[in-house]
Amino acid sequence: MDSPAKATYPQMISSSGLAKPGLTNNTFGATVTPASVQQISGLNTLGVSMARVDYAPGGINPPHTHPRATEIVFVLEGELDVGFITTDNKLFSKTIKKGGIFTFPRGLIHFQINSGKVPVAVIAAFNSQLPGTQRVANALFASSPTVEDVVLTKTFQVGTKEVEKIKAKFAPKK
Amino acid sequence: MDSPAKATYPQMISSSGLAKPGLTNNTFGATVTPASVQQISGLNTLGVSMARVDYAPGGINPPHTHPRATEIVFVLEGELDVGFITTDNKLFSKTIKKGGIFTFPRGLIHFQINSGKVPVAVIAAFNSQLPGTQRVANALFASSPTVEDVVLTKTFQVGTKEVEKIKAKFAPKK
Amino acid sequence: MDSPAKATYPQMISSSGLAKPGLTNNTFGATVTPASVQQISGLNTLGVSMARVDYAPGGINPPHTHPRATEIVFVLEGELDVGFITTDNKLFSKTIKKGGIFTFPRGLIHFQINSGKVPVAVIAAFNSQLPGTQRVANALFASSPTVEDVVLTKTFQVGTKEVEKIKAKFAPKK
Amino acid sequence: MDSPAKATYPQMISSSGLAKPGLTNNTFGATVTPASVQQISGLNTLGVSMARVDYAPGGINPPHTHPRATEIVFVLEGELDVGFITTDNKLFSKTIKKGGIFTFPRGLIHFQINSGKVPVAVIAAFNSQLPGTQRVANALFASSPTVEDVVLTKTFQVGTKEVEKIKAKFAPKK
Amino acid sequence: MDSPAKATYPQMISSSGLAKPGLTNNTFGATVTPASVQQISGLNTLGVSMARVDYAPGGINPPHTHPRATEIVFVLEGELDVGFITTDNKLFSKTIKKGGIFTFPRGLIHFQINSGKVPVAVIAAFNSQLPGTQRVANALFASSPTVEDVVLTKTFQVGTKEVEKIKAKFAPKK
Amino acid sequence: MDSPAKATYPQMISSSGLAKPGLTNNTFGATVTPASVQQISGLNTLGVSMARVDYAPGGINPPHTHPRATEIVFVLEGELDVGFITTDNKLFSKTIKKGGIFTFPRGLIHFQINSGKVPVAVIAAFNSQLPGTQRVANALFASSPTVEDVVLTKTFQVGTKEVEKIKAKFAPKK
Repeated sequence: MDSPAKATYPQMISSSGLAKPGLTNNTFGATVTPASVQQISGLNTLGVSMARVDYAPGGINPPHTHPRATEIVFVLEGELDVGFITTDNKLFSKTIKKGGIFTFPRGLIHFQINSGKVPVAVIAAFNSQLPGTQRVANALFASSPTVEDVVLTKTFQVGTKEVEKIKAKFAPKK
Repeated sequence: MDSPAKATYPQMISSSGLAKPGLTNNTFGATVTPASVQQISGLNTLGVSMARVDYAPGGINPPHTHPRATEIVFVLEGELDVGFITTDNKLFSKTIKKGGIFTFPRGLIHFQINSGKVPVAVIAAFNSQLPGTQRVANALFASSPTVEDVVLTKTFQVGTKEVEKIKAKFAPKK
Repeated sequence: MDSPAKATYPQMISSSGLAKPGLTNNTFGATVTPASVQQISGLNTLGVSMARVDYAPGGINPPHTHPRATEIVFVLEGELDVGFITTDNKLFSKTIKKGGIFTFPRGLIHFQINSGKVPVAVIAAFNSQLPGTQRVANALFASSPTVEDVVLTKTFQVGTKEVEKIKAKFAPKK
Repeated sequence: MDSPAKATYPQMISSSGLAKPGLTNNTFGATVTPASVQQISGLNTLGVSMARVDYAPGGINPPHTHPRATEIVFVLEGELDVGFITTDNKLFSKTIKKGGIFTFPRGLIHFQINSGKVPVAVIAAFNSQLPGTQRVANALFASSPTVEDVVLTKTFQVGTKEVEKIKAKFAPKK
Repeated sequence: MDSPAKATYPQMISSSGLAKPGLTNNTFGATVTPASVQQISGLNTLGVSMARVDYAPGGINPPHTHPRATEIVFVLEGELDVGFITTDNKLFSKTIKKGGIFTFPRGLIHFQINSGKVPVAVIAAFNSQLPGTQRVANALFASSPTVEDVVLTKTFQVGTKEVEKIKAKFAPKK
Repeated sequence: MDSPAKATYPQMISSSGLAKPGLTNNTFGATVTPASVQQISGLNTLGVSMARVDYAPGGINPPHTHPRATEIVFVLEGELDVGFITTDNKLFSKTIKKGGIFTFPRGLIHFQINSGKVPVAVIAAFNSQLPGTQRVANALFASSPTVEDVVLTKTFQVGTKEVEKIKAKFAPKK
């Protein structure tokens, strides 16, 4: 049905959830705060969503894809190194200053890293209300059930020991 | 062709054009700085774009539509009154504080006004690389050639004098 | 799900509701009789709908948009002046004679007026089962709740008195 | 590119080509007058088109499909028997009077026949600027090169003689 | 909603139903074994499906359309004559050997026939989870209710006797 | 333009390029032979393509995504272990026997491995004429220019030595 309006107007299509920085005291030194249809039900069928990403100095939003959306980011604070890799294995990267924008085409692996000494914040917009996010390392080394070692040793051409070492890093803390 | 990547990668898909506030010393006290495919050719086929809107105190982004996109905005600075009207003539409005987001569904008339005493800035994202903008008052009272008075008097149920008065306001300054 | 057929075949996908002229003894001297999915449930997912518009002499279908469809009209009886305005504020207008067709691109403001001395009737077709209609003047001057005067005075660059006068015209008759 | 407007506005998007009845003195007693992007170049990317069909008494628009569009028809004059067959081989048929509308879902075989004693005319609208038309009998018995007899005898479970007889009927007149 | 994953992952999206040849001891000497969303519910919203077609020597998959999908086939065993007819009534045909592929554009009438002396098997893939299949001869001569003789005699330009003869062939066996 | 037919019919839309097994004497013990619009130009706009994948015993098609298509595979020969990971980091895996089919949803990381002792071959179909393929390890460890070590050490939580070791494995052979 192409009439989202009726269904969604009575629901709120706004949020204040991105106003404050997310905590960055985690492994990657970065946090993604989503504002998709899962947080804002009124976005259903509207084909847009947002997220805020905060990075501590040295923080990284590690290589990931959005299977269902192109992403465009605007740097709120600080300066960010960004990059994506094409299906021809070309890397396109750039340092984006405050107020700059950059685009990550649908489905391609990309990452951002704060190489500076102050926190960085960006607003990301997506052309889907539910873009989805798949972090490459988590998908391969921390899935449930686990991807078998033989797949990973052949994929990365390393030994089982190296694979187990990485898996251990991603294992839930006890 | 569903392979935007090849075509667009050699072109830049980033911009610093939204980093600085636009000038707001105009009739409406507000300025839209676009970052669509017309400014950033690499956005072609990627289905996203952005714009920055700056508002002086009292400034307004007057009622308009985007024929080809839903819009989602994030308030960078200040506090903004926003609203859109549905096809059932219901007005949905809200005051959005700094860091808040709000959504304007595709094709519906909407507006933003800075009712505060300090400048306001927002970043808008669109799910089209060329959303298009049609300002209602300009379309009706300042088109080229002009919309005939009889259409406008019947539409707004006013006299020719009132119509001519509004047209004069929108006429190019000499 | 891309299988509309199963769901809709048991429902009727025809109507005789457009066979007779609508009454035109109203403010605008024109009436739109819709045949969308709201009247014909079997149109759901089929992506088409129709409407009939009847115009008394001098009658107008005032400036409006369809947020979700391009419209193509065929003149059944009489001769009609039509126009639409582009996002560049160019007006494209034409007088369409009986049997003529004209197209209004998705989301752009357009209008039709019967400048002749006899009734006019047209059949309009849309590439959506629920195109939606937003009349510009009603959206701005007759919404519920009302758009604040300050928005409208700034938009049309007139005084509060003029705005209130127009609002009064659109107020429900008591 | 999602900006049809620029490209198409300078071109006309209207036509008077459907104003007059098409000639019906042919084998099927019916004529389709198209108004697609092939006749009206400004329809390109707009996703709509129209056609007029005229039927002499006894005239038929024989079973055909539109591979790229759903069709909705409005009866201008007379009374028309219409039908379409679903993928479950259910026939849905109806007699449509003047002013009635009927819908043929995308890609399904359908037909119309004038069982009355006066001419019939309809306006058809499509949700594609180039819906395409494939007449079943012409496709099978009058293609170039020809479909081999063995395909047709097995398909219709008749002998070569019957197939050749039908092919002869569809052969170009000398 | 653009998030098929959640809904479909707990359901299986695999099948062994195409592993074995279908029986071909029927009128047409051929059998289609579908693997669409009707057999594999997890395909819902994923936009793909498959089918296996087996042909006895002389077997035919008679002229038909898929209203909602383009089809691409791969020959598993044997050698197959295939063809489709365009909307301009051009026939494109070819003999496809084992391991060859061929494409049938969305909505166009096409057929395959085993002109060899050994069984043939193909795998067909579709860009819809529910492509639908409409066999031309069955639609016209074996629908329920039946298409009236007058439609068919005019369509194929034959007598009622010939039409009734074909209908009888398609009647359910008692 | 929605009329692919005209453009593509004069071009061939078939191929024999998938008939023979690809060579598997490479690092991964597997080869993908594509049949997309880059090999078969007539597929342009048709929204389908195919590929053949051959696996030596122990061969792997390492974790990768198709940014623009869902994939459905049919096992031609042998028995294959397949898996994909969702955006929630759930692994769905299965052993597919000869004649079995399995689906990989658009944009998600997936892999196949031949755990048996005989060669395996599959036919893969895509709902895009140019699905694109991005191998995760190649994208991260063998792009041009290279992804900086700091990104990779943080991503996989290993030392520079481990990263350099993997990069070396992927370096072009001299």
